Amino acid sequence: MSGLFTIALDAMGGDHGPGVVVPAAVGALGKYPDIELVLVGDESMLSAEIARHPVQPSERLRIHHASQVVGMDEPPAQALRNKKDSSMRVAINLVKDGKAHACVSAGNTGALMATARYVLKTLPGIDRPAISTAIPSIHGHTHMLDLGANVDCTAEHLFQFAVMGSVLVSAVDNNPSPKVGLLNIGQEEIKGSDQIKEAARLLEASNLNYIGFVEGDDIFCGDVDVVVCDGFVGNVSLKTSEGVARMVSHFIRAEFKRNLFSRFAALFAMPVLGNFKKRIDPRLYNGASLLGLQGIVIKSHGGADAFSFENAIRIARLEVEKNIAQRIDKQLEQLLTEREAS
Amino acid sequence: MSGLFTIALDAMGGDHGPGVVVPAAVGALGKYPDIELVLVGDESMLSAEIARHPVQPSERLRIHHASQVVGMDEPPAQALRNKKDSSMRVAINLVKDGKAHACVSAGNTGALMATARYVLKTLPGIDRPAISTAIPSIHGHTHMLDLGANVDCTAEHLFQFAVMGSVLVSAVDNNPSPKVGLLNIGQEEIKGSDQIKEAARLLEASNLNYIGFVEGDDIFCGDVDVVVCDGFVGNVSLKTSEGVARMVSHFIRAEFKRNLFSRFAALFAMPVLGNFKKRIDPRLYNGASLLGLQGIVIKSHGGADAFSFENAIRIARLEVEKNIAQRIDKQLEQLLTEREAS
Repeated sequence: MSGLFTIALDAMGGDHGPGVVVPAAVGALGKYPDIELVLVGDESMLSAEIARHPVQPSERLRIHHASQVVGMDEPPAQALRNKKDSSMRVAINLVKDGKAHACVSAGNTGALMATARYVLKTLPGIDRPAISTAIPSIHGHTHMLDLGANVDCTAEHLFQFAVMGSVLVSAVDNNPSPKVGLLNIGQEEIKGSDQIKEAARLLEASNLNYIGFVEGDDIFCGDVDVVVCDGFVGNVSLKTSEGVARMVSHFIRAEFKRNLFSRFAALFAMPVLGNFKKRIDPRLYNGASLLGLQGIVIKSHGGADAFSFENAIRIARLEVEKNIAQRIDKQLEQLLTEREAS
Repeated sequence: MSGLFTIALDAMGGDHGPGVVVPAAVGALGKYPDIELVLVGDESMLSAEIARHPVQPSERLRIHHASQVVGMDEPPAQALRNKKDSSMRVAINLVKDGKAHACVSAGNTGALMATARYVLKTLPGIDRPAISTAIPSIHGHTHMLDLGANVDCTAEHLFQFAVMGSVLVSAVDNNPSPKVGLLNIGQEEIKGSDQIKEAARLLEASNLNYIGFVEGDDIFCGDVDVVVCDGFVGNVSLKTSEGVARMVSHFIRAEFKRNLFSRFAALFAMPVLGNFKKRIDPRLYNGASLLGLQGIVIKSHGGADAFSFENAIRIARLEVEKNIAQRIDKQLEQLLTEREAS
């Protein structure tokens, strides 16, 4: 690895494959002089796609051939068994073999998680990797995990997610003491399942900056940095927020098209609303971290465009720079040692 | 009960008590000539509040004295044991005793559910009541349940929620065959817990219009009428949607205040955005149904204003008119008979 940060890209993954990954790679190379990218996938397709851009394959933009592609709906077990030369698997292998510092894939989440876990293994002390992403909030953003890798979680799993999220945020946001909240519901009598109550006890006893239970609306208020939950709840909450945002956009567009006055008003309002949209543009948040692995793996949205995918590359670069995997390892070891000592 | 529909109001409940409930009652009486309202609570406080409005206590606006109030944070078990003359309990008693067709309370949800369940009992065949409300969607609204009454649910509970939601929507929306979806997450390998998979089997075998799994964003797309989930997930999803809506409002306001141009643009945009806000105004959705009880109980948001609370009265009136409790009873009996026969 000659550049500072080498990132392997699953160039065939996602809904659009090389048509999105290659222009994103070209864009990222322009922005980040300290990265080099390895496009993993069908050599001829990738060469053809590169030829459409004003770049040449080079040390900074290499092609690494892989003969197979994991389907977007392919069951993870099947991908793991039958797709040993898939662009996804080979990209992860490059991380395993020390030939890349991180990889990015827009391929199917289940297969990516299963393959990454199989190839890279989890960090010592981590039972299950989790998926984390930043979500816009009033004062910036909030990280949330798990977003769908683990349906049922024990208290210990939730505790591990909290550690991973806290380490991630402290590193990427330069936040020395991220506020960690456990996602719960408000009603006293049924407050939380047994797992959540036990996770709260573990977190209270740790040296994490645990602020207690938070509710669904707190994710967006900016008073918590890391929101911890099981993957079912996290996934529903994330998709709910996407659904609301889409509905709001739909209604705003519809209202401004309603009549002559509103169409006129739109001339003035649209530049302002454009600024607003930039604040919650999901493309700026594209790139979820698969945390808890012995290596950095970033999942891009399957339908990501080049601008979005470039953001996922940015996140991969940042996590390499900040040494996320090792930091989690170290922090967890320290917390578990403290817990045993107390 | 001399009027067509008699509705008992817990006039002391919620953050604002009589100051909100009395004006809401006055407003509702003006709008719905077929209702009469019983204000349950401290007689002197209620008389004083009524005196502030251009109405007199009458057959249509009666006061029913109750000496106690359930606190907003009071544990349900404590309220049940110690507050036998609370405005909440007495309002529910009126339903039990056939002196009111329904009751509305903005008091604490846990205490309301526990008291309603204790006093009214569940319908035969219903193990647990659920909380349901309408949520705005692109094409109108979607009903969702459970929203927080039940943290852990079996497949049979989810099935019962589906029946209750379907009956509710078919009655209040005049929708003969509401589309029922089970809330799940998208990833194949971990799709759903065992309870959800089993609930799906029960629903597929029923004569409900079950359309399969839906995800968090589908709640708002308008392609499903009833979204079924456990109370933990439902509560997180509902609060998430409220949080996103608040964040969006905050950002829009902030952008229109940013500079001279945006302040000017706001002059034109605000009337249009006002129409948009009306479409998702949470006050128009205030009033959650406690379904599965032998009686109609509507929960208003604790912080509701008079306009909001009036909407909860509207919903109570509608559910009385549509005979919701008996309809659920009948539909459930029919479905269970069919299931046994098959």
